[in-house]
Amino acid sequence: MPGDLAVTIPSGSMLSEAARLAGFDLNQPCGGQGRCGRCAVIVDDARSAVRRRSTIRLDPEDVAAGYALACQTVVEGDAWVTVPPQEAIERRLVSHKTAAKVEVPFDYDPRRHQSIQRYFLRLDPPTLADQTDDWARVTRALATSGVARPQASLDVLRCMPSILRGEDCPSLPESPEISVWDEGPLPWEVTAVVALDSWDRPEGPPQLLALLPGDRTDRNFGAAVDIGTTTVSVWLVDLETGEVVAQAADYNGQIARGEDVISRIIYATRDGRLTEMQEMVVSTINRLLEAAGKQVGASTAEIFKLAVAGNTTMMHLLLAIPPDSIRLEPYIPVVNHVPTLTAGELGLAAHPQAIVDCLPGVASYVGADISAGVLATKMDEAGELTLFIDVGTNGETVLGNADWLVTCACSAGPAFEGAGVEHGMRATVGAIEEVWINNDSLEPAYRVIGREGEKPKGICGSGLLSLLAEMFVTGVVDRAGNLRVGASPRLREGEHGPEYVIAWAAETVDGGDIAITEVDIDNLMRAKAAIYAGFTVMAQSVGVDLADVSQMLIGGSFGQYINVEKAVQIGLLPDLPAPPGSASPWDRFRFLGNTSIRGAYMALLRRDVRAHLSEIAGMMTYLELSADNSFYDAFTSALFLPHTDMGQFPSVAAVFDKTR
Amino acid sequence: MPGDLAVTIPSGSMLSEAARLAGFDLNQPCGGQGRCGRCAVIVDDARSAVRRRSTIRLDPEDVAAGYALACQTVVEGDAWVTVPPQEAIERRLVSHKTAAKVEVPFDYDPRRHQSIQRYFLRLDPPTLADQTDDWARVTRALATSGVARPQASLDVLRCMPSILRGEDCPSLPESPEISVWDEGPLPWEVTAVVALDSWDRPEGPPQLLALLPGDRTDRNFGAAVDIGTTTVSVWLVDLETGEVVAQAADYNGQIARGEDVISRIIYATRDGRLTEMQEMVVSTINRLLEAAGKQVGASTAEIFKLAVAGNTTMMHLLLAIPPDSIRLEPYIPVVNHVPTLTAGELGLAAHPQAIVDCLPGVASYVGADISAGVLATKMDEAGELTLFIDVGTNGETVLGNADWLVTCACSAGPAFEGAGVEHGMRATVGAIEEVWINNDSLEPAYRVIGREGEKPKGICGSGLLSLLAEMFVTGVVDRAGNLRVGASPRLREGEHGPEYVIAWAAETVDGGDIAITEVDIDNLMRAKAAIYAGFTVMAQSVGVDLADVSQMLIGGSFGQYINVEKAVQIGLLPDLPAPPGSASPWDRFRFLGNTSIRGAYMALLRRDVRAHLSEIAGMMTYLELSADNSFYDAFTSALFLPHTDMGQFPSVAAVFDKTR
Repeated sequence: MPGDLAVTIPSGSMLSEAARLAGFDLNQPCGGQGRCGRCAVIVDDARSAVRRRSTIRLDPEDVAAGYALACQTVVEGDAWVTVPPQEAIERRLVSHKTAAKVEVPFDYDPRRHQSIQRYFLRLDPPTLADQTDDWARVTRALATSGVARPQASLDVLRCMPSILRGEDCPSLPESPEISVWDEGPLPWEVTAVVALDSWDRPEGPPQLLALLPGDRTDRNFGAAVDIGTTTVSVWLVDLETGEVVAQAADYNGQIARGEDVISRIIYATRDGRLTEMQEMVVSTINRLLEAAGKQVGASTAEIFKLAVAGNTTMMHLLLAIPPDSIRLEPYIPVVNHVPTLTAGELGLAAHPQAIVDCLPGVASYVGADISAGVLATKMDEAGELTLFIDVGTNGETVLGNADWLVTCACSAGPAFEGAGVEHGMRATVGAIEEVWINNDSLEPAYRVIGREGEKPKGICGSGLLSLLAEMFVTGVVDRAGNLRVGASPRLREGEHGPEYVIAWAAETVDGGDIAITEVDIDNLMRAKAAIYAGFTVMAQSVGVDLADVSQMLIGGSFGQYINVEKAVQIGLLPDLPAPPGSASPWDRFRFLGNTSIRGAYMALLRRDVRAHLSEIAGMMTYLELSADNSFYDAFTSALFLPHTDMGQFPSVAAVFDKTR
Repeated sequence: MPGDLAVTIPSGSMLSEAARLAGFDLNQPCGGQGRCGRCAVIVDDARSAVRRRSTIRLDPEDVAAGYALACQTVVEGDAWVTVPPQEAIERRLVSHKTAAKVEVPFDYDPRRHQSIQRYFLRLDPPTLADQTDDWARVTRALATSGVARPQASLDVLRCMPSILRGEDCPSLPESPEISVWDEGPLPWEVTAVVALDSWDRPEGPPQLLALLPGDRTDRNFGAAVDIGTTTVSVWLVDLETGEVVAQAADYNGQIARGEDVISRIIYATRDGRLTEMQEMVVSTINRLLEAAGKQVGASTAEIFKLAVAGNTTMMHLLLAIPPDSIRLEPYIPVVNHVPTLTAGELGLAAHPQAIVDCLPGVASYVGADISAGVLATKMDEAGELTLFIDVGTNGETVLGNADWLVTCACSAGPAFEGAGVEHGMRATVGAIEEVWINNDSLEPAYRVIGREGEKPKGICGSGLLSLLAEMFVTGVVDRAGNLRVGASPRLREGEHGPEYVIAWAAETVDGGDIAITEVDIDNLMRAKAAIYAGFTVMAQSVGVDLADVSQMLIGGSFGQYINVEKAVQIGLLPDLPAPPGSASPWDRFRFLGNTSIRGAYMALLRRDVRAHLSEIAGMMTYLELSADNSFYDAFTSALFLPHTDMGQFPSVAAVFDKTR
């Protein structure tokens, strides 16, 4: 189906063979190795006799719904099979892998949970008989809304007389957007935007953040921000529904000043450069906030709360706090729990009085992004041994459960975020996000993010990971990462040494070849080795075996696209045994996307979650990897594909033996 | 005595006559009319028979000590009299009248009452085994000093890593003075300056205002500031002892933009001028803070708390809050209770994190200076009916006692502060502060502020008041304030119309005549009429008679120099009867100097006083004089010397009848 075509084939044949005989042209970019998932078909299991050899590329729900990979499914009797339209498969897989709509992660009642509230106030106009001052008149009205003894900043007071009298406020030059409300509201009818409490002041007192003309209680925006060393992400949130209404991400503008935190710190140490670094990241965030606002027709001046996560260096640079001591032994941050700030203080594109909650960090190299990640993954509530990795430039890892959490960081570099690699790019339209290499011809096939037929511009982190795994499995590189130059026209000496061409000039947007060089491969190897070495040392330090890990949680904006099988093949993730009662080891792995921004988003919504996050940060024990030599040893051992000790990767060894 | 000279004179003669016979050359600049007090002698009352006709110029303690005015004391038998050295009299009177050392006004225990505290912290240096972040390390140490869960601003955090490590903090450009502590203190030994609470946050949490290198617990400064429309005053206070260690005052730089609050508001209303007005007053305050600091060798960066009083318009302009609504019916201030601010927000010359407490005001025309005045005078605790006038540009008046307080303002203009008058000046060195005119020759004598023989530069408020009274009593002006041109060479037609010459060019610093014109006199008449009209209307409004007032309290930087008899003679102050058991009506009058800055000073010292001040402001009922016509009628009636209704000034009528 569709078409009710019937073919007869020998028992033991693959479904893909049956489809070919029936005249269906199934996509098989990986050459029928079960690695790409593009030949998915639907089997009517109730009346069919088939055996799925591998379902790696399918979700359990997919399998339950009858999906099977045609190239990995053995026909053992009669079978009823539907071949879905190829575009549908394409779309389905793409949508499955790109940023899905974010679900509100918990019960959310804006009246009960949210610190930022709006109140419409209809004030009694002043008279000679009631000469109450403007501010007392406003507080009197707020008291009837249950807001007791609020405070106000100078900026709010400076605009108060104009706004109350239905006029523009010229004395707020920082926020011209304030005059977008140009409907000519009635005097003495205003909306008060109030922060009932903040992280610093859980008991209040309430703060009047702004008075807006007329009734503006219909809108209330906040933003979650994740400042990665390489990638900055922003989620715009409707604080009434709790929903993420727009997302935006881009490279951190500071990249031009160093790829990792250490080079950023060194750069920032010189006179005036700290301010330059601050302005760079603020400018990136502001561009993203504006882009997100545009998606839903909101002005950034409507944002009254921001929750910001990021590693410790990124937070210091955002705040222009000198980060030098982070870099120098004994590696001390100036501040892990940053006080509550305003957007105006930092120059962020939001209402100048918007509350900025910087999430709490743990140590110099385990920052707020990781405590946010733990919050988002709920590993602090886990009964079983859990390993959490935030795949980003710093490769922070957390091991533990509800009783204890130990954490460390291993500088992985930005390769898996597509930076520091010749043709690397972020996972956006035009990025090659998955690659398959034919075992015999060494010809690649790839999938590009975007519409059907989108031409590639470069290759993103998941594409690089996929590429490295394919090159390894097909022998394009050896276990040490050296390219087999000459084995194919694509394996050549390029301008920067040996390289493998993924896309010829004619196929690409820019009209140049897209290739990966041995230098790129070296960067990827070092990145994956650093992360795996981190796992190893941390497990050793608490006396557990990596094989005892019950669940492996993978975060990072990179993490949401990666192929776990390939990540294990290159030795990035540990080769865990299948859990009891499951045929697939992959059931132990969960891809969670950007856990840092998710944690920030959760903290943005609920004040009780903020309090819980502080507890999490306090519960995490930091392991300083630089304090002993075992990390370096583990790193060196991991600089092979998948690892010097093949015994640690039994499933990879099995595949390797079979395919080579 | 001294010299044991004996003379014989007829009974009924004046002591001054006896002194002349004995060869003593007593000063009598007022011509023996008992008005100047310069002929004071000491009578051995126990064995002398004399009768003091008038003791106006003497304190009750002076009289008790035997002082008598030689020109006003009748010899009725034997008398033993000491003539003190004339310089001693001079010095005594001058010191009595100029700004005396301010006594700490109440029990003051800096540990118990003061919000600003300093703690010396000797921190454990960080190690790989203790990677606590800088801020947590500081809070841990503060906790042992009893400071729980403090907060810190971004600026403090930005300097924290440098200061803790014994380095300069380059990222605090606003306060270069911070590096005056250049003794090379040990790393990890710092002084924390903490605000335990503030007006806005009486329950805390504590705020870390600054970390200073080394042990700096020996110094702790604050400042009280009074922003008058015409005059700005600053007291620098040692917060450890509670003592005022330096004082400074000058004209408000805004005078060039209008003499009264209304013209300032009109000026400020145009684009950008609000900021200009703010900068002007901030610049005046900063000059005074720096001058006060220099007097005791303190940097303004050592000031960590300021208490600021001023009328409502001055406060709005200091804060750059649009003051327009103050001027327009129904006369509404934007804010009476200003939130707690920092010096950095306002650009004040103090540590940028210094806490700025703006004292609470009552209404558009009765501001924080008046609630501070009530606090300083303690009239809110008075059992008897009390009338308080702040003699300044705005002429605010408060009537009441411990049970009720009613208040109003009558725009007096700046004449009594020496502004808006041709040769007017502030009460500083070179100012004529008192004048006596000879009844017959119409020749004046005067006293100049400064050393013996100081030449005059101009005439200050008390000098003008004294001059107007003398001109009235001697007939130089008539009751309507017209000059009797031609009656003396000093009464002439000048460039600006009729004038009376007080000092000829040869006597003055600048080498020009010092004179008072009819326009000046008109300004003075309008000022005194406005103030008296305020008394009248307010007493009427609450149904009491001015004669029922038990004590009359006079504040204002002008007020501390004025001569009450002369003030009553011109009709500025009411002509109250002598209190029971006292021969002198002057016992009802108390001169309190600048009550506004005194109130600010009290609030600076003690947090309980701040709370009490808020209660005072809440207790005061404001009477809007513009709301009815009775003020204008009372003002017109008071535009005579002393008043149209001479019956309201019985003692003046008596003197007038006698001297004319």
